[in-house]
Amino acid sequence: MVTLDMETARMVLAAQPFSVLLGARLEVFEKGRATIVVPVRENLKQQNGFLHGGVLAYAADNAVTFAAGSTLGPEVLTSGVTISYIRPASGVTLQAEAEVTYTGRRQAVCRCDLYAVAEGGARVLSAIAQGSVLAVS
Amino acid sequence: MVTLDMETARMVLAAQPFSVLLGARLEVFEKGRATIVVPVRENLKQQNGFLHGGVLAYAADNAVTFAAGSTLGPEVLTSGVTISYIRPASGVTLQAEAEVTYTGRRQAVCRCDLYAVAEGGARVLSAIAQGSVLAVS
Amino acid sequence: MVTLDMETARMVLAAQPFSVLLGARLEVFEKGRATIVVPVRENLKQQNGFLHGGVLAYAADNAVTFAAGSTLGPEVLTSGVTISYIRPASGVTLQAEAEVTYTGRRQAVCRCDLYAVAEGGARVLSAIAQGSVLAVS
Amino acid sequence: MVTLDMETARMVLAAQPFSVLLGARLEVFEKGRATIVVPVRENLKQQNGFLHGGVLAYAADNAVTFAAGSTLGPEVLTSGVTISYIRPASGVTLQAEAEVTYTGRRQAVCRCDLYAVAEGGARVLSAIAQGSVLAVS
Repeated sequence: MVTLDMETARMVLAAQPFSVLLGARLEVFEKGRATIVVPVRENLKQQNGFLHGGVLAYAADNAVTFAAGSTLGPEVLTSGVTISYIRPASGVTLQAEAEVTYTGRRQAVCRCDLYAVAEGGARVLSAIAQGSVLAVS
Repeated sequence: MVTLDMETARMVLAAQPFSVLLGARLEVFEKGRATIVVPVRENLKQQNGFLHGGVLAYAADNAVTFAAGSTLGPEVLTSGVTISYIRPASGVTLQAEAEVTYTGRRQAVCRCDLYAVAEGGARVLSAIAQGSVLAVS
Repeated sequence: MVTLDMETARMVLAAQPFSVLLGARLEVFEKGRATIVVPVRENLKQQNGFLHGGVLAYAADNAVTFAAGSTLGPEVLTSGVTISYIRPASGVTLQAEAEVTYTGRRQAVCRCDLYAVAEGGARVLSAIAQGSVLAVS
Repeated sequence: MVTLDMETARMVLAAQPFSVLLGARLEVFEKGRATIVVPVRENLKQQNGFLHGGVLAYAADNAVTFAAGSTLGPEVLTSGVTISYIRPASGVTLQAEAEVTYTGRRQAVCRCDLYAVAEGGARVLSAIAQGSVLAVS
């Protein structure tokens, strides 16, 4: 199995045009953990000025997939993700922190916390997620 | 309760900068149903040339929310969404067809089918989703 | 791959002591579909006289697993299930109707409708579910 | 709002005939946390000698509901639960530990860890869950 390091994982993210469009960055990538950060911009919002739920769903999906990739290797397929929204997200960045709860050879199960971070650094939990990822054999 | 018609619903979508960024359109909006269509573009893809899972997650989330809005009115908050990915999506458009399975005064439960549509019109089921939406009282 | 027929599938259900404890029956089992029926009894209820949500969760889980088994064969492992509760369930039986939305060699994705059936046969949708099942290779 | 204490919460559990049938006990109940324990018995198993997934789904559902009840009060309705299965569960008891991730006036979001506990006390994570619970106003 090929193991991913931070540099390679960042190259994978940079090779995702949709992640580039959203300005997503990979801030943490280590065995069992990945954090995707999305700077809040006007064009990521919904009609009331909050981050669109779809941005949170993207970040949860991608953070879960990268966290799983840290244990399963680069060839993975996300099987499913559940996101529970908690509060409308505003602030300057969105942080999606995913961790691997379990990993086998074929499948990993991950959780993800999504925080809206204010200018001064205060974090507010905006959503939580859970997902399963399969290794592509 | 204010009832949403197609014209108003399209204005809501147009007021979501993130939906505009993705080029999303509302193609169906009637009591209990909503279809969001996203034309496939290069910058909506992942590293292997397929639509990014986050685009599907966005479309599922938004189609579920609009379908629920057709019965609950415009002031809604999506509580949670589960998406199960089936096949990598390619083609010319993504169609997210949501329907309301149940609606009460306070909550609606919806299902959504996500199809990748090829040039000739052939549709392939790429993901299914399920979500709950709360009326904001 | 071994294919399951109705008789064998019923033997599998009869070999599940928990399903026997709940009095569950397999009423439909064909390629891509399975219906589990649970007769409502006093000891399956919660504190307000409705069927316990856990009975619905059991029925959803098992109907999804059997439906997937109809296409993947008997050696399967349910990866995850999401259930959305709609209305408290009462009546004389619970029907969990699952169908396979997608099946590949390694994984199947299913949906399930859970109906509470009244004495006269009227059915009320009580919950909907969605789940993924892996083939054990 | 009526606040639940451990004694009252245990009376609620004892008033659920299905929980009595399964032999479930409430071992932890405090603001934001609830642990449901189910002793493993022959008639809670599936065909391969492991605990039936439906028992885990029941325990997740009920632990999430009780945890939410610790902050929302006794009148709650579980909106939805997602369970991801990790490993077949065996041993002497099943522990479902739920905690409230967020609580407002109308809704709480919870996570739950499900452990299979061996004779000597060793715990193995068997499933994780996430759920939303509504206050009944």
